[in-house]
Amino acid sequence: MSKPVRIGLLGRGTVGGAFHELVAERADEVAAVAGRRPEVNGVLRRSEGDFDGILAGSDIVIELIGGTDPARDYVLRALRAGRHVVSANKQLIAQHGDELFAAAREAGVQLRFEAAVAGVVPVIRVIQESLAATEITKVFGIVNGTTNFILSEMASTGAGYEETLRRAQELGYAEADPTDDVNGADAAAKMAILARLAFHSPVGLGDVAFEGITEIQPDDIAYAKELGLSLKLLGVAERVEGGISVRVFPCFLYRGHPLAPVEGPFNAVMVEAPTITEITMSGPGAGGTETATAVLGDVVSIISGKAPVHEVRERLEIVRDISSSFYLHLEVADRPGVLAQIADVLGRNEVSVRSVVQRGHGDDARLVMVMHEGPEARFRAALEEIAVLDFLRAAPRAIRVIEEEFV
Amino acid sequence: MSKPVRIGLLGRGTVGGAFHELVAERADEVAAVAGRRPEVNGVLRRSEGDFDGILAGSDIVIELIGGTDPARDYVLRALRAGRHVVSANKQLIAQHGDELFAAAREAGVQLRFEAAVAGVVPVIRVIQESLAATEITKVFGIVNGTTNFILSEMASTGAGYEETLRRAQELGYAEADPTDDVNGADAAAKMAILARLAFHSPVGLGDVAFEGITEIQPDDIAYAKELGLSLKLLGVAERVEGGISVRVFPCFLYRGHPLAPVEGPFNAVMVEAPTITEITMSGPGAGGTETATAVLGDVVSIISGKAPVHEVRERLEIVRDISSSFYLHLEVADRPGVLAQIADVLGRNEVSVRSVVQRGHGDDARLVMVMHEGPEARFRAALEEIAVLDFLRAAPRAIRVIEEEFV
Repeated sequence: MSKPVRIGLLGRGTVGGAFHELVAERADEVAAVAGRRPEVNGVLRRSEGDFDGILAGSDIVIELIGGTDPARDYVLRALRAGRHVVSANKQLIAQHGDELFAAAREAGVQLRFEAAVAGVVPVIRVIQESLAATEITKVFGIVNGTTNFILSEMASTGAGYEETLRRAQELGYAEADPTDDVNGADAAAKMAILARLAFHSPVGLGDVAFEGITEIQPDDIAYAKELGLSLKLLGVAERVEGGISVRVFPCFLYRGHPLAPVEGPFNAVMVEAPTITEITMSGPGAGGTETATAVLGDVVSIISGKAPVHEVRERLEIVRDISSSFYLHLEVADRPGVLAQIADVLGRNEVSVRSVVQRGHGDDARLVMVMHEGPEARFRAALEEIAVLDFLRAAPRAIRVIEEEFV
Repeated sequence: MSKPVRIGLLGRGTVGGAFHELVAERADEVAAVAGRRPEVNGVLRRSEGDFDGILAGSDIVIELIGGTDPARDYVLRALRAGRHVVSANKQLIAQHGDELFAAAREAGVQLRFEAAVAGVVPVIRVIQESLAATEITKVFGIVNGTTNFILSEMASTGAGYEETLRRAQELGYAEADPTDDVNGADAAAKMAILARLAFHSPVGLGDVAFEGITEIQPDDIAYAKELGLSLKLLGVAERVEGGISVRVFPCFLYRGHPLAPVEGPFNAVMVEAPTITEITMSGPGAGGTETATAVLGDVVSIISGKAPVHEVRERLEIVRDISSSFYLHLEVADRPGVLAQIADVLGRNEVSVRSVVQRGHGDDARLVMVMHEGPEARFRAALEEIAVLDFLRAAPRAIRVIEEEFV
């Protein structure tokens, strides 16, 4: 029997605890598939443990602390000391990827991080291994379970954002401070990682334009339902003319879109390339044992053999004005000529209307419109003009719509 | 620069041709991610080429001939000569897996076959690598694109099976001889492979009970639509009490099931385990470039490093009587007491009814029922009794229903 593989575990929170249990429970299985048995030889917690001691006694270091400080320092030291590293830390990889990948390559060790994006959904492995030599054109999906849960709940209950957030917190789907989830920052970090891997370009947090879901109104969801639309917080990284575009935004999907049925705290990612059409992967995006299972998969691969370490190949331009379709919700005075004036503004800005629904009358008159796809800057220009029209009773609300048709 | 990796290509049909072009086009990319450049050094076609010569000059042999003879002989000889092998051949792996895996292990080389199941959908890699140490309890899904296309078309057009099959043939989604696709044998071979990998047990073709779609009637699909059901040819491999069960059968899915929206020639596979809840993967299950991309992914992994070779760990019992829910379509004489008699038969056999729809009257009276889940043998016993009731105007039609609820 070969010598065990010694694992140094940094962090013992929800995921760390689940991983510690899982690796003990599945050690024989790992030995059977990968040839050597893993053994946790040291655990670093906030209040106890000595990093240098753990490092000295480990073959693989598992970083499950979260945040960038001291995680960055520990991971860099582990890599430079020739240790393979597995991390579930999206902020660490998104913010310090360049430095970490370089350190791993120099030391000839692996840095794996499947659990950093979409939990146990195997998107990192598929992009880095199955599709390693494929020219990926687009990676997009639902990469934040908290917001997907909130939006699903709002759609099924009709309740407002604040009330639904509280329910998500009670159920453990949202943290006490949900800021990074609900404002899109968490999804942005994940999309920066996916864009980097898909396009081999050094995409950083500042390159990702993000919007959250805090301004979403229940009636937008209700009106959109009538149009056959469901609302998701979408992350999109794609090749566009002149470079790449990486964004996170709330967005309506037509029924029949593969991401439309993804409900609750689930994540789903789609990858597109000319040679593959598209692959969709979905599953639980969080959860202690789920995330720990993703970490264990990385550990097995490290024990089994080597894997490619990400390398930057080119510095693609970040393009910000891209083509989009929009939903537009207007509360208007109920008088003749309103639709004509709005249509005039849209027409002059070359924004073309796909569908219009008029609702209510008197003080409750509304226009709900969906536009055809076009340059976002044109729609924004039209929106500025519309916002100051005197018959508007409230600020217009605009939300992107994905209108691609699927098989 | 390292020496190129020499590739011997066996077969140059649709997938072989697409692979040959793809590897030339992406050779630089493979070199960038995997460290060495692939080069096709020989191609064996039916009419030309010398296997021994190609073998002698190759580091990796790619088998894209299909069928088991001479593919089995070539692959065995390649493995025994110390060559890594990539195959897209489901029949080869399903029928001769034991022998091939043993040969690969003995020679210390890789045998990869992502493209053999669900084309470019990365189900083999996810089961063998991401979930290598995970106790998988169930693998199921849509693994035959021809039948999924036919069923999707029948549902959307209302056309019959024969007519839709001809349309599928015209569009290139069904072969001139579609037998193995439409009778379930193709899906059975794929499920044998997935069951083997998921459960580490030597599952052979004879262990898979399979049914096809040739008996499906358009009105079954139409009635089921009213009940919120859509019809798929499903492959299921699962751990059950006493062993495992591996089956292929046409089956209704409730709306909201993750596989229900999978339409046309797409494939989708779900993997369940206690520690992951479930992962769903979908995408094109066939196509020249798509399948070639899966083969190329395997080539990149071989160049990058080693991977686990499948090994049998235990011989699990194949269990055949499992628990199912059924849809039952009965053409009956329109007279009093009919439903009561049927209910009596079902009740005596302990089959519990979930919903009933009565349609038409006189010579067109029908009963469409959906049962709650229960032992299949009990339902079959009830069905035998019902089939001989004097008021039946045609043989009863029974189709399984998946009634699990999903998030």
